[in-house]
Amino acid sequence: MSDREPVIVFALFPGVTQLDFTGPHQVLSALPGAEVMLASSAGGTIEAGGGMNFAGVRRLADIKECDIVCVPGGRGATDNAMLDPVFLAELRRLAAGARYVTSVCTGALVLGAAGLLRGKRAATHWAWRELLVPFGATPVAERVVRDGNVITGGGVTAGIDFALAVVAEFAGAETAQAIQLQIEYAPAPPFDAGSPETAPPAILARVRERNAAMAVDRQRQVAEAAARLGA
Amino acid sequence: MSDREPVIVFALFPGVTQLDFTGPHQVLSALPGAEVMLASSAGGTIEAGGGMNFAGVRRLADIKECDIVCVPGGRGATDNAMLDPVFLAELRRLAAGARYVTSVCTGALVLGAAGLLRGKRAATHWAWRELLVPFGATPVAERVVRDGNVITGGGVTAGIDFALAVVAEFAGAETAQAIQLQIEYAPAPPFDAGSPETAPPAILARVRERNAAMAVDRQRQVAEAAARLGA
Repeated sequence: MSDREPVIVFALFPGVTQLDFTGPHQVLSALPGAEVMLASSAGGTIEAGGGMNFAGVRRLADIKECDIVCVPGGRGATDNAMLDPVFLAELRRLAAGARYVTSVCTGALVLGAAGLLRGKRAATHWAWRELLVPFGATPVAERVVRDGNVITGGGVTAGIDFALAVVAEFAGAETAQAIQLQIEYAPAPPFDAGSPETAPPAILARVRERNAAMAVDRQRQVAEAAARLGA
Repeated sequence: MSDREPVIVFALFPGVTQLDFTGPHQVLSALPGAEVMLASSAGGTIEAGGGMNFAGVRRLADIKECDIVCVPGGRGATDNAMLDPVFLAELRRLAAGARYVTSVCTGALVLGAAGLLRGKRAATHWAWRELLVPFGATPVAERVVRDGNVITGGGVTAGIDFALAVVAEFAGAETAQAIQLQIEYAPAPPFDAGSPETAPPAILARVRERNAAMAVDRQRQVAEAAARLGA
């Protein structure tokens, strides 16, 4: 760990899924001395789904360096980010100097599009794991995956588990446990439907059908992003 | 359920703990047809901890009615809200017409200060349960507690479990399960330290000591809020 206090950057784009980064933000901002920043290509205000807007977002280009860079996901939004050369260039620049390069949910596809997952094992949202392959990554059906300095989390709520793992790495297990207790993270889901393995088959079919509507576009955009990377 | 689409209002105040409402917001905004709103006394921008700011927040006074009103918590911030007559009046007004009156974390203390927990069983953050008593509520050491039309969640991350329970209530278990699968809510905390019963004793002592620094102020402010309510 460097001498200065850790700087943690969430690299956002319009339409980002807010819980992908608000969960980790709650955990990481409790890391002693940490400076946690929201940033995007344009800075200013970022619209997330469901009418939630984040103000005071920094410009990625204004951030000289950071210790952890984290890319959250989003539904159609991720696909735009994968094909945004400015966003990808800033991501590569920050990743080059970061201690950890990280993502939550389909943010892993954006890391992939930036060329940051070549030869790496990685997690992403369960519905989109195979889309990591065109970027040279090996999808892993785990909630948090570490490979070298790349730490990736699964879908949306996996970001909380991911962030506690990152805190443990940075500041030790006791600090992570204290944060876990403070945010009362003793989860008790009312149903056991949070993964494709445990969800009732009819529920899985329903969610797969909903995702199928965007799968064709997403596959096409991943192919395009992977082709650009190879060029 | 009324004929119109459900309107869900998160009643915010400066310094609110963001995950108390961003977690439930992610879940509830997936409820088919739901209109989810962030609102505060002044509207505009609300600052949460850790440098996160929410823009486009509505004024509580501009919201005519809602189906669900939810009050999140915050550290010192909750105490200000408990003693803010304008905020409490708006909360009472919306609660009077709402199908469900709800809170996450220390938001329960604000419901209490508004006189909405008299004679009710309620959950709140584990560290502050006894502070529900002066408001005439019975603290319950559970993650989600329902008593009549009042549904309260425990600390911070309990908001996700809370919101899935609310969706199940509103739209049925299958809709809640589909949302759970979509947000991959199959939690796997890296430690078992999320409740005072399971945390290592040294960790519990450390968090209790940190909370003790604000406990004296908070107890005084709860007493003041309870006294006003009795007047």
